Amino acid sequence: MSRRQEQGVISQQSTATASDLLRDLFVATRTESVARAAPLSDAEATIQSMPDASPAKWHLAHTSWFLETFVLRDFVKGYAPFDPAYAYLFNSYYDAEGDRHARPRRGMLARPALDEILAYRAHVDTAVIAAWPTLPPVARNLIELGCHHEAQHQELLLTDILHAFAQNPLEPALWTLPPARRPSAAVAAPGWVAGPTGIVGIGHGGQGFVFDCEGPRHKVWLNPHAVADRLVTNAEWQAFIDGGGYRRSELWLSDGWAWVQAEEIAAPLYWHGGTAFGLHGRQPRDPAACVRHIGFYEADAYARWAEARLPTEFEWEASAAALPDAFGEVWQWTASAYLPYPGFRIAEGAVGEYNGKFMSGQMVLRGSSFATPDGTSRITTRNFFPPTARWQFSGLRLAKDL
Amino acid sequence: MSRRQEQGVISQQSTATASDLLRDLFVATRTESVARAAPLSDAEATIQSMPDASPAKWHLAHTSWFLETFVLRDFVKGYAPFDPAYAYLFNSYYDAEGDRHARPRRGMLARPALDEILAYRAHVDTAVIAAWPTLPPVARNLIELGCHHEAQHQELLLTDILHAFAQNPLEPALWTLPPARRPSAAVAAPGWVAGPTGIVGIGHGGQGFVFDCEGPRHKVWLNPHAVADRLVTNAEWQAFIDGGGYRRSELWLSDGWAWVQAEEIAAPLYWHGGTAFGLHGRQPRDPAACVRHIGFYEADAYARWAEARLPTEFEWEASAAALPDAFGEVWQWTASAYLPYPGFRIAEGAVGEYNGKFMSGQMVLRGSSFATPDGTSRITTRNFFPPTARWQFSGLRLAKDL
Amino acid sequence: MSRRQEQGVISQQSTATASDLLRDLFVATRTESVARAAPLSDAEATIQSMPDASPAKWHLAHTSWFLETFVLRDFVKGYAPFDPAYAYLFNSYYDAEGDRHARPRRGMLARPALDEILAYRAHVDTAVIAAWPTLPPVARNLIELGCHHEAQHQELLLTDILHAFAQNPLEPALWTLPPARRPSAAVAAPGWVAGPTGIVGIGHGGQGFVFDCEGPRHKVWLNPHAVADRLVTNAEWQAFIDGGGYRRSELWLSDGWAWVQAEEIAAPLYWHGGTAFGLHGRQPRDPAACVRHIGFYEADAYARWAEARLPTEFEWEASAAALPDAFGEVWQWTASAYLPYPGFRIAEGAVGEYNGKFMSGQMVLRGSSFATPDGTSRITTRNFFPPTARWQFSGLRLAKDL
Amino acid sequence: MSRRQEQGVISQQSTATASDLLRDLFVATRTESVARAAPLSDAEATIQSMPDASPAKWHLAHTSWFLETFVLRDFVKGYAPFDPAYAYLFNSYYDAEGDRHARPRRGMLARPALDEILAYRAHVDTAVIAAWPTLPPVARNLIELGCHHEAQHQELLLTDILHAFAQNPLEPALWTLPPARRPSAAVAAPGWVAGPTGIVGIGHGGQGFVFDCEGPRHKVWLNPHAVADRLVTNAEWQAFIDGGGYRRSELWLSDGWAWVQAEEIAAPLYWHGGTAFGLHGRQPRDPAACVRHIGFYEADAYARWAEARLPTEFEWEASAAALPDAFGEVWQWTASAYLPYPGFRIAEGAVGEYNGKFMSGQMVLRGSSFATPDGTSRITTRNFFPPTARWQFSGLRLAKDL
Repeated sequence: MSRRQEQGVISQQSTATASDLLRDLFVATRTESVARAAPLSDAEATIQSMPDASPAKWHLAHTSWFLETFVLRDFVKGYAPFDPAYAYLFNSYYDAEGDRHARPRRGMLARPALDEILAYRAHVDTAVIAAWPTLPPVARNLIELGCHHEAQHQELLLTDILHAFAQNPLEPALWTLPPARRPSAAVAAPGWVAGPTGIVGIGHGGQGFVFDCEGPRHKVWLNPHAVADRLVTNAEWQAFIDGGGYRRSELWLSDGWAWVQAEEIAAPLYWHGGTAFGLHGRQPRDPAACVRHIGFYEADAYARWAEARLPTEFEWEASAAALPDAFGEVWQWTASAYLPYPGFRIAEGAVGEYNGKFMSGQMVLRGSSFATPDGTSRITTRNFFPPTARWQFSGLRLAKDL
Repeated sequence: MSRRQEQGVISQQSTATASDLLRDLFVATRTESVARAAPLSDAEATIQSMPDASPAKWHLAHTSWFLETFVLRDFVKGYAPFDPAYAYLFNSYYDAEGDRHARPRRGMLARPALDEILAYRAHVDTAVIAAWPTLPPVARNLIELGCHHEAQHQELLLTDILHAFAQNPLEPALWTLPPARRPSAAVAAPGWVAGPTGIVGIGHGGQGFVFDCEGPRHKVWLNPHAVADRLVTNAEWQAFIDGGGYRRSELWLSDGWAWVQAEEIAAPLYWHGGTAFGLHGRQPRDPAACVRHIGFYEADAYARWAEARLPTEFEWEASAAALPDAFGEVWQWTASAYLPYPGFRIAEGAVGEYNGKFMSGQMVLRGSSFATPDGTSRITTRNFFPPTARWQFSGLRLAKDL
Repeated sequence: MSRRQEQGVISQQSTATASDLLRDLFVATRTESVARAAPLSDAEATIQSMPDASPAKWHLAHTSWFLETFVLRDFVKGYAPFDPAYAYLFNSYYDAEGDRHARPRRGMLARPALDEILAYRAHVDTAVIAAWPTLPPVARNLIELGCHHEAQHQELLLTDILHAFAQNPLEPALWTLPPARRPSAAVAAPGWVAGPTGIVGIGHGGQGFVFDCEGPRHKVWLNPHAVADRLVTNAEWQAFIDGGGYRRSELWLSDGWAWVQAEEIAAPLYWHGGTAFGLHGRQPRDPAACVRHIGFYEADAYARWAEARLPTEFEWEASAAALPDAFGEVWQWTASAYLPYPGFRIAEGAVGEYNGKFMSGQMVLRGSSFATPDGTSRITTRNFFPPTARWQFSGLRLAKDL
Repeated sequence: MSRRQEQGVISQQSTATASDLLRDLFVATRTESVARAAPLSDAEATIQSMPDASPAKWHLAHTSWFLETFVLRDFVKGYAPFDPAYAYLFNSYYDAEGDRHARPRRGMLARPALDEILAYRAHVDTAVIAAWPTLPPVARNLIELGCHHEAQHQELLLTDILHAFAQNPLEPALWTLPPARRPSAAVAAPGWVAGPTGIVGIGHGGQGFVFDCEGPRHKVWLNPHAVADRLVTNAEWQAFIDGGGYRRSELWLSDGWAWVQAEEIAAPLYWHGGTAFGLHGRQPRDPAACVRHIGFYEADAYARWAEARLPTEFEWEASAAALPDAFGEVWQWTASAYLPYPGFRIAEGAVGEYNGKFMSGQMVLRGSSFATPDGTSRITTRNFFPPTARWQFSGLRLAKDL
């Protein structure tokens, strides 16, 4: 999440094992980013399709700048930066680190070329591994943070390149092999999982890495309610469309209705006829698959049409362990605005300077998507986007009062 | 609140007394609107200074259209509308009532003239009073709703005319007599009122009129906290300015910082030098008076600068009875997004068609201002505006964790 | 023309008769403005429908400010301005005269009221007449300029109020008596008037008042050509519409086609069904009347559709004396961009500071309209507007090569 | 000129020599485009820095599409298009040729890659040469037109890539060898070349290729005047800046002044401190070199500051033979709007469908620049751009009345 903030509530394992595990995480993370970008040409890694999206090359470089700045520069004596200009080019929004290249103009960076960025990555990786034995615990915490930060960018690398490819009339596919089609069995109506009633604990309170917005752990009162045991499907969304969902103002929040009319929105992003565009190119839609690429306003209108509602993020968290598709399919819009938990504090220093600064105008999504790197989403993870964002791998599940 | 929705959770007093009280409310409400507009010329009542504001004439007419449509048309046999064209001109956003004049073009209605609108009001008032003995309870509930709806427009009539007058280099004053200046004693640091900890009940649950968003009553868990026993003052805000408050990015939410820079905001709206513009014209600022005309982003930044935070709307409600200036000064921004309470349902029918439709992108304000008509704000009242809105009589009080 | 510049190339009659004639012109001009605004209420005289238009009240005041500033202030010892604030409010674009109220916000001036503006006019008029015997020739020249300047605003007062009234769904009429309808005889195809070939003299070169852009007189070479002996009619324009004129890209200049599509233009301004809105309100269209309220792009596309072209302003001027409807119906778009004549010089001083400053991005119109005050348009008059302007009383006549 | 229209007024040499000469032109032209793009990486050839500019790859492909469509498709039996999708991707604005990719989104075409576009070029070239003996005269005329069309795109390829490189904080240089610096001798004041007075012939009237807007040849009357014998220099422009040229409203056309203020323009494009950015990267400015990268509004303001004026395009043409630097340095803004010459007619058919459609809102530039391919600009050539365009190699020379 390029705009998400992180803070090290880092696991404090004191043995050599912890160091080894972290090094494994570091290597795996750094390898995964390169693997995701492997199918891209230099030109494909350069273009930027909208201000909210970043070039693949930029994701690759920014995640390296993070490590170079907060680990190598600050904790490795005599480290020479790969290129002093990169600090300006690849800082995202860390004001304490100085000026930076304007976000909507990231697509102008034909130079440095993809090969140079890959060399930059190798330079940083080598320096980190070489310095490993001498790094103090605080630097290791920053590496752990950097890995989770990079995992977020790995997902964005895919959502952003998908958006860029969708602007090309040739509709190129990132992944050349078509996916194995699972048999499209008729999908039964969702079942309902009754959630806990009364006081529940929400948020992270134990050990292990989390982003700062996932805590402090605190109490929330929940009324009797249930959440659906599966995600809303393409077939169900088609029924919403056929039922006039995008034309009935009474289903929509006021701002959502204005948006639908101004943007002439009538289907999820990337839908056309019976097809959808995705990382495998344009393919027929599987009616049984979960719907993707919808914004919060659409999710909210759908829920009203279905005579249900979206779950709050607290309801989602309280029942997530009982939901078979909570993770790995699509991020799920909730009814909750992205706000600080009680007792939330902004961390000190440049890394945390902006913790919480995005807590206005955005809605929370929970779970994870098929593009989220393994092991990087938790039951307490709070993703967030503006209510009109559609280019993420975002869907929904329903909830209702009992 | 022109964009606020209402629903009749109406007091169900069954005696003649209830009818008499309602008629008194009706007469007092209808009289108050005309009194507020009395200083205005036809031209002053016609102009519109921005899309978010409406002409005074429009407020006077719209509140009458509400009664004419939902009471007279629907419940008074043989009622002839004052002018059939008014339904198009003075509907605000009730889709079920048909098309309507575009909001940003309300200032183009030089006709009907102010005199005609006043005649319209008299026509409606006479018809309501004449029909009074025959009105069924549901119609009386709608009249009660109409009175509270009109009370909201009475406040907007003043905020909107103030904004319009502020566009005129002559800076005319609505109220010609200068206010009595209270002696500007040095103001002590605020005290802190410890709020309740644990489960508290929030929202309206009893009898008497409320807007629908004030319920259902429900439970919320509160952590240990305190709220300030007075509002933030002009002198304190000046210290924030002097301390670089509008220039320090680390104090601001990301969207707020972008707004401050794009709009070049450096002080509350209507401030200039040591003065502020208000309904009495441009006057020197009283350092001890509470600050007015700030947006949510400013309130939030101020609280961060003061090493405190804004109260949630639940904390505010839980302590309001203990706060001497909770009502009658300025609306107070809270840390809460405007979202539905658990179990909230949209009412049926045209009057309620849009209940809840504004529940996105806005923040809650609590209390009331000096311009709020007497007796129309409750401890459960939820006002709401986008985080950049500044033309309302809006200020803040601080809160902190204990 | 609110944005047109003027310069005194003033008639230099040295007798008392010249003074008397000028005083008659002054009185007649000042009276005519008030007469044109007489049907307006204060509110109607206050509103502004778009940035390009000004309130009627502003036209009344600005023309008085011109006289007050350049005549009374500069040439009448001891003259006290009516209100010192008016210089800020009613300056249009004379930079040398200091800052001024922003043009798009002129509609915010509910104060001063219409009555005050009329009092301002009387104050200025009285002072000018009282000072008359003592005014030096240069001041009289400025009065003559002021009269012609005011004549331009008299036409704009009508075009602007028509535009404002058209924004009101009630569609009020400025002039309450319907016009006498001339019998709508079938109109014959236009005849063609052959213009002169070879070198012709263009522009003003003799005595009498003209605006500076009408000179210097100079030579232009004309190829063999002819201009139509009448204006294009509503019936002919309807045929253009029926022939797909607004949907055939090959008829349009590139910028014009983009404009038609972006603004969804499909008929002259104020047309609806078989009617047109005008100063008499909405009325059936007379097929034989000349078409009004078209922009240059439309005129140009029509001419191409008709297998003809627009005349250049030089062709128009060379044949105007032979055209029975050159004046008094509608201004006629020409194929000429508004550019300085050879040898054109900007006059010195505040009055003339901007002569020629509008000579980019605009096209020339020739003739005059029914709303042009009598005696204020000449065969050399150059009106000008951007190619998209439609709210003027503008039409066209055709031309062709021979 | 991507938006310029062409028409075949083609040389009609009937011998084999003419065919050989044309084939030489064809080969040289096609080779030159590839040579100009040779320093570019795939990514550099892909990016688009603003809607008015096109990617280098697009220029290479569009000029090939022109030949493939109008020559190979229409005149070579059995020709198979390289890729049917290219017609959609690389049509610029020829409506008769069907829909096309939106201009501002040309930078999204990471595919086809640069290699594929070069293969496309080779495919087209081979097919044209193979078909050469069988091509009818009309096809050869179209090839000649295609060569001149491509020459225009060769200049745009450089102006557009310069603009793109200027967006990159690294400020890469297209041409790696710094230019030989000519000694910066003090430049004397310009001399004045008196032009012809009276009737002169303007425009192309003989044989050889020209674009259609260069004719018909016609007569124009010129008053006594002179044009400067050299271009305005960087040193002179610096004096204009030092003299407050960008801050003195009286020097500017009204629209120009609004543009200067809105865009905060205070120097030619690409200037910074004592340097300018160009195809050799950022370099110190040569005071004696001609100023580049100014818009018409700036040229016009400079001329006023210098107490001179811009020449009309007719004055320029009448004296060009006497001007040593008329060609090969910078295009020179004139005082003339881009309008059709008397008797101008739009050619029939797809190639000419839009002739003249750009004749509104643009000003004429004359001469040629150092980036104009040899032999492709004539004394009658009319280049044109909107008055705010600055990314072209555009400067000015002065003129004055005698």
